[in-house]
Amino acid sequence: MLKREHEQGPRFEERGPFFLDAMEMHAGGKIRVGSAFPLNTRADLSRAYTPGVAEVCRAIVSDPSIAYTHTIKANSVAVVTDGTAVLGLGNIGPLAAEPVMAGKAMLFSEMAGVDAFPICLDTTDPDEIVRTVKLIAPVFGGVNLEDISAPRCFDIEQRLDAELDIPVFHDDQHGTAVVVLAALSNALRLTGREWDGLRVVMLGAGAAGVACTKMLLTAGVRDVVVFDRAGSIHTARGDLTHVKRALADSTNPHGFAGDIAGALRGADVLVGVSGPGLVRREDLATMAPEAIVLAMANPVPEIFPEDVAGTPVRVMGTGRSDYPNQVNNVLAFPGIFRGALDAGATTINAEMKIAAARAIAGCVSDAELDAGRIVPDVLDRRVPTAVAGAVADSARRSGVTRTAMG
Amino acid sequence: MLKREHEQGPRFEERGPFFLDAMEMHAGGKIRVGSAFPLNTRADLSRAYTPGVAEVCRAIVSDPSIAYTHTIKANSVAVVTDGTAVLGLGNIGPLAAEPVMAGKAMLFSEMAGVDAFPICLDTTDPDEIVRTVKLIAPVFGGVNLEDISAPRCFDIEQRLDAELDIPVFHDDQHGTAVVVLAALSNALRLTGREWDGLRVVMLGAGAAGVACTKMLLTAGVRDVVVFDRAGSIHTARGDLTHVKRALADSTNPHGFAGDIAGALRGADVLVGVSGPGLVRREDLATMAPEAIVLAMANPVPEIFPEDVAGTPVRVMGTGRSDYPNQVNNVLAFPGIFRGALDAGATTINAEMKIAAARAIAGCVSDAELDAGRIVPDVLDRRVPTAVAGAVADSARRSGVTRTAMG
Repeated sequence: MLKREHEQGPRFEERGPFFLDAMEMHAGGKIRVGSAFPLNTRADLSRAYTPGVAEVCRAIVSDPSIAYTHTIKANSVAVVTDGTAVLGLGNIGPLAAEPVMAGKAMLFSEMAGVDAFPICLDTTDPDEIVRTVKLIAPVFGGVNLEDISAPRCFDIEQRLDAELDIPVFHDDQHGTAVVVLAALSNALRLTGREWDGLRVVMLGAGAAGVACTKMLLTAGVRDVVVFDRAGSIHTARGDLTHVKRALADSTNPHGFAGDIAGALRGADVLVGVSGPGLVRREDLATMAPEAIVLAMANPVPEIFPEDVAGTPVRVMGTGRSDYPNQVNNVLAFPGIFRGALDAGATTINAEMKIAAARAIAGCVSDAELDAGRIVPDVLDRRVPTAVAGAVADSARRSGVTRTAMG
Repeated sequence: MLKREHEQGPRFEERGPFFLDAMEMHAGGKIRVGSAFPLNTRADLSRAYTPGVAEVCRAIVSDPSIAYTHTIKANSVAVVTDGTAVLGLGNIGPLAAEPVMAGKAMLFSEMAGVDAFPICLDTTDPDEIVRTVKLIAPVFGGVNLEDISAPRCFDIEQRLDAELDIPVFHDDQHGTAVVVLAALSNALRLTGREWDGLRVVMLGAGAAGVACTKMLLTAGVRDVVVFDRAGSIHTARGDLTHVKRALADSTNPHGFAGDIAGALRGADVLVGVSGPGLVRREDLATMAPEAIVLAMANPVPEIFPEDVAGTPVRVMGTGRSDYPNQVNNVLAFPGIFRGALDAGATTINAEMKIAAARAIAGCVSDAELDAGRIVPDVLDRRVPTAVAGAVADSARRSGVTRTAMG
């Protein structure tokens, strides 16, 4: 059972000075929109604005593909949310979601030179979200869906991906799945395991839990037990949504119906994409030797790294910047969109996601690989470059670029 | 009658090298979105992204007004179009409209430090435009409507201004009206005339023509004859829209029903906000001495300045960067939104627009005032500063700020 009793626990930051710092940093907003080149003379103005701009407009009328190379569509991503599932904070609405979306926009720019803009929608209706994103799509080269609650997010992503000719990527699903795949593949490399022999417990069956589970099954995992708030997901449960029913059919081969502590007995891997403080130290005590724990709830993980001491856990990761092994989507999304934009991809398919995970894992050399270093640093600029190259190659090879589509 | 025969006339630019320059300048898009501060360390990341960002989200949940100061809403403007009336190019659609909207975004940034983002909507339905802008409004501190065709633009602006708590401003209407008021007030100063004795001919009864006419009536003009494509607008016409019917009632006191040449006989002022090449030199020959012509169709004016030689025209302005007296909205919109954002204005009312026009006119001193200098240079950085100050003061005095509204 996933309880939220630790959510506002006493360890949540030195609220005083840290809070002031974070607030201060956000004053006036934390992204800027500016000109790509200086605008100093009337000649500059004549070219960038009237009358020169009319030539570019006319060129696009004659050949709409020019919009993909000579407008911001060439390099822009909409970071779209409806504010229903923001970090671990839940349904906080579009106004309060902006700092997270603007944070992603900063990272897009800093890590991959992508021009991302937050779009925080004042509606939670899936039809209206789909319609609105389609209506604003002309100026965007990609759509990063973010913090939209499950199960609505699955349908919204599928519909947009089918109806738009630009890549649509729900980062909470696929960004998380990509970094989890990368982190676990290095953790397996470190501890000498193979995918098909693993016993995995997945806490959380929202956007991230569903996508991570699917990704692990694709990687070859055979035994994964997924938990939602009501307990382990198995075929005998009568309260499952369509999406969870599909999960029940493809996971939990032994029909495990106990609690988290029971599921963890002898398990090799725990992936937490659920809520703060949901795992106790004693739950981890019976895991297999050299166990791997990725406790990725944000901002407060399922369990803090200092609390695993004395358990069999050898490798521990979180989503946070202030602990080792930051298994955070920032390793994935900037490079994935950079690669998709560079290749003129019309979608981001499974091959491109797996290529991204391989590229991330490959940024940690054998010599560097260590229990405290299963993923590269989130600020390591080599990562987005490697990911972008791998994703662009994969897009071209799998024939999902605009050129390939004709 | 407004004919468009000169639209693709031979004088339209040295197409070769200029065209290449403008295209080249647009490659990859001409605006960038980036971080407002460096993101070099994990500590930076901890504050700007997870976990620090959660504190800011929580603060906004507790007090939504913090979104107006600590998100991009503090400084952002959506430049919204549906691509139906772009420059003089007409209904070219949202993809081809982007270069104009991005050009405005550049100018917002360069002239006034406003973070503007182009929103080019893939719909021309007024209800859908209103709904979409409302849905994306949470991240914007203002809405600049642009190049939306008349008469749809009037209703769209009114509804959005009424339904949103941020300023909504259709630049083709009010930006144009503000710069025309500024330019004419300096031209009157130069030629020693008063508003109430003027005879004015207005070419164009679209967004700009309607707004300019209303502004001139507010300034004290009594005799203005407005032309649309079908001829002069007078009360005997049976083909008038609701908006033009109201124009007929408030203008053309003598019921003039002739052609443009006839209306210009003895006229003091011609304001052109219509289409390219619609005025011939011989039409201007019978204007009053020291006549004033603002031929503002973009990119090709109603008549080029070199073609007024030998006519009574003393003061001649266009909207273009490559001639003197550039009576362009760029003198108005950056400072108007800067002032509105600074004051926390919830709308942009008539007082604020008149304050903006006075501030623009005031940037040309008596010593500088000349037939070739009735408006300041569009790249003069003093202009947006003066306009912003005047607009913010006016907003506060007229009680339309968020603080004043409680």
